[in-house]
Amino acid sequence: MYIPTLDDMLAAHERIKPYVHRTPVLTSTFLDELTGAKLFFKCENFQKAGVFKARGASNAVFGLTDAMASKGVATHSSGNHALSLSYAAGRRGIPCHVVMPRTAPQAKKDAVIGYGGIITECEPSTSSREAVFAKVQAATGAEFVHPYNDPRVIAGQGTCSRELIEQVEGLDAVIAPIGGGGMISGTCLTLSNLAPDVKIYAAEPDQADDAARSFRAGHIIADDAPDTVADGLKVPLKELTWHFVSNHVTDILTCSEQEIIDAMKLIWKRMKIVMEPSSAVPLATILKNKDTFAGKRVGVIITGGNVDLDLLPWLNT
Amino acid sequence: MYIPTLDDMLAAHERIKPYVHRTPVLTSTFLDELTGAKLFFKCENFQKAGVFKARGASNAVFGLTDAMASKGVATHSSGNHALSLSYAAGRRGIPCHVVMPRTAPQAKKDAVIGYGGIITECEPSTSSREAVFAKVQAATGAEFVHPYNDPRVIAGQGTCSRELIEQVEGLDAVIAPIGGGGMISGTCLTLSNLAPDVKIYAAEPDQADDAARSFRAGHIIADDAPDTVADGLKVPLKELTWHFVSNHVTDILTCSEQEIIDAMKLIWKRMKIVMEPSSAVPLATILKNKDTFAGKRVGVIITGGNVDLDLLPWLNT
Repeated sequence: MYIPTLDDMLAAHERIKPYVHRTPVLTSTFLDELTGAKLFFKCENFQKAGVFKARGASNAVFGLTDAMASKGVATHSSGNHALSLSYAAGRRGIPCHVVMPRTAPQAKKDAVIGYGGIITECEPSTSSREAVFAKVQAATGAEFVHPYNDPRVIAGQGTCSRELIEQVEGLDAVIAPIGGGGMISGTCLTLSNLAPDVKIYAAEPDQADDAARSFRAGHIIADDAPDTVADGLKVPLKELTWHFVSNHVTDILTCSEQEIIDAMKLIWKRMKIVMEPSSAVPLATILKNKDTFAGKRVGVIITGGNVDLDLLPWLNT
Repeated sequence: MYIPTLDDMLAAHERIKPYVHRTPVLTSTFLDELTGAKLFFKCENFQKAGVFKARGASNAVFGLTDAMASKGVATHSSGNHALSLSYAAGRRGIPCHVVMPRTAPQAKKDAVIGYGGIITECEPSTSSREAVFAKVQAATGAEFVHPYNDPRVIAGQGTCSRELIEQVEGLDAVIAPIGGGGMISGTCLTLSNLAPDVKIYAAEPDQADDAARSFRAGHIIADDAPDTVADGLKVPLKELTWHFVSNHVTDILTCSEQEIIDAMKLIWKRMKIVMEPSSAVPLATILKNKDTFAGKRVGVIITGGNVDLDLLPWLNT
């Protein structure tokens, strides 16, 4: 297992700069007064492909040799990673193969196609997915890029908090949502090297709290069947992300589904930005743990903005 | 009728700088490709009180002498102007009286109260509103600030396009929605003096097209009963805004309700920002008049972001 280093992150940042946005940091007087903290929202919802994952995907794609790149890249994620990898592959002019269940919502398929991805459908089962994916790889020789358990991806995600500490001085803490742990691992990689006094918090739904339970147990525990509105956060930690989480995270805080939805609506209403349920989990946990953050300067990663505008969670009754 | 000058706008900008945001300009590769133009979105949805009107209201409030200010300000708008005037009065520490029909939605009343406004209710008729407003003014001596037919307000709104031409070089045109004409008049004031080659377009719903019809007729025509999802645009031009519109606007373009809703959803989806139906009217008209804007560098004013998240227009079926 190769663990990415500070140099990998710095090289990633040089490599991906032409293809990703240096996203803005927004603040809100209202939310500062509500929380008692000074919050700095790093808006990766404005990132290419609408999500921070464009960073890691771009690093993986543009780090390939020409010979490797010519065969394309492949993944079996059907969410934000698929969009991001398709985006990055499109910028390099190489194919991106995405294996998706034929039962996936048409909107998700359309989004991948919109970014230029090539979909191969499988049956909605793990065995079918693995078999179809193996066939695609064998036929194309495409390079597999895991959504988070990949040093190239983690080095890319680490560029987000490098920008954040350049944009905001004197941060006391940074908080980001945790699913598979790619963003948190990149944050750990960067901050443990460049700003070791900044505390790193991860935020997770109660209903998908495998990372919090792993953190307390000292080893990876996977959820059986996580079910949360923050659907990007259902995936489990893997060995590489567990390395960073177990070594560098201060605490993992959790919150309820209603708290996520309330925090999401509050951000939309007050900050006028469109972001995903996953991205609201940090604010929800800050509101629940005000004493931890009171008086502190806190970076809050708004991880993405890809949400179905026809299915907003506060309208489901 | 006093017509505000360039010096009034420049003085307004100095006066209000501590109380308003210099809002960011966002771009979208997707929307550029879709329209064939290069669009620069001036995001007043991120403005204080969620709307450009914080500029004009702040200029009116902070331009008062201490003696006048001590009696407060007053308005009978129940929308964005009421929020903005309440916000500005709150920053100066003076009362803001808002006369509103008792039948107005509780959400609107709560928003005004949230910004510190003092509501006096009237019956839902023009005669009651005028009678109650006269009573409030007589009792308090508060200064009336009209939402748009006021030189202080227009000078304040003009600061928006001054920032825009500082932020974006070489604009060919600027487009903004038109209701009463406050934003467009401020835009005319600034650009006719500082960037006279930049064309100024106004955008209006078909179903509230009094400004477009006035423009063609050469005199003010008021709608009988305008009805549009862009509810901030229902009000008629007045003498002062007509002066600017008739002298400096290149054209007034209109579009249907469905085109407004489609453009609004497109901006939310692609730019990840929350903005009002009114703010989508410019993009809707650009999409309808592609030849006019193709190859041009166009400033697009996103006027505000105060929208009821429980009543999104694309969800009404």
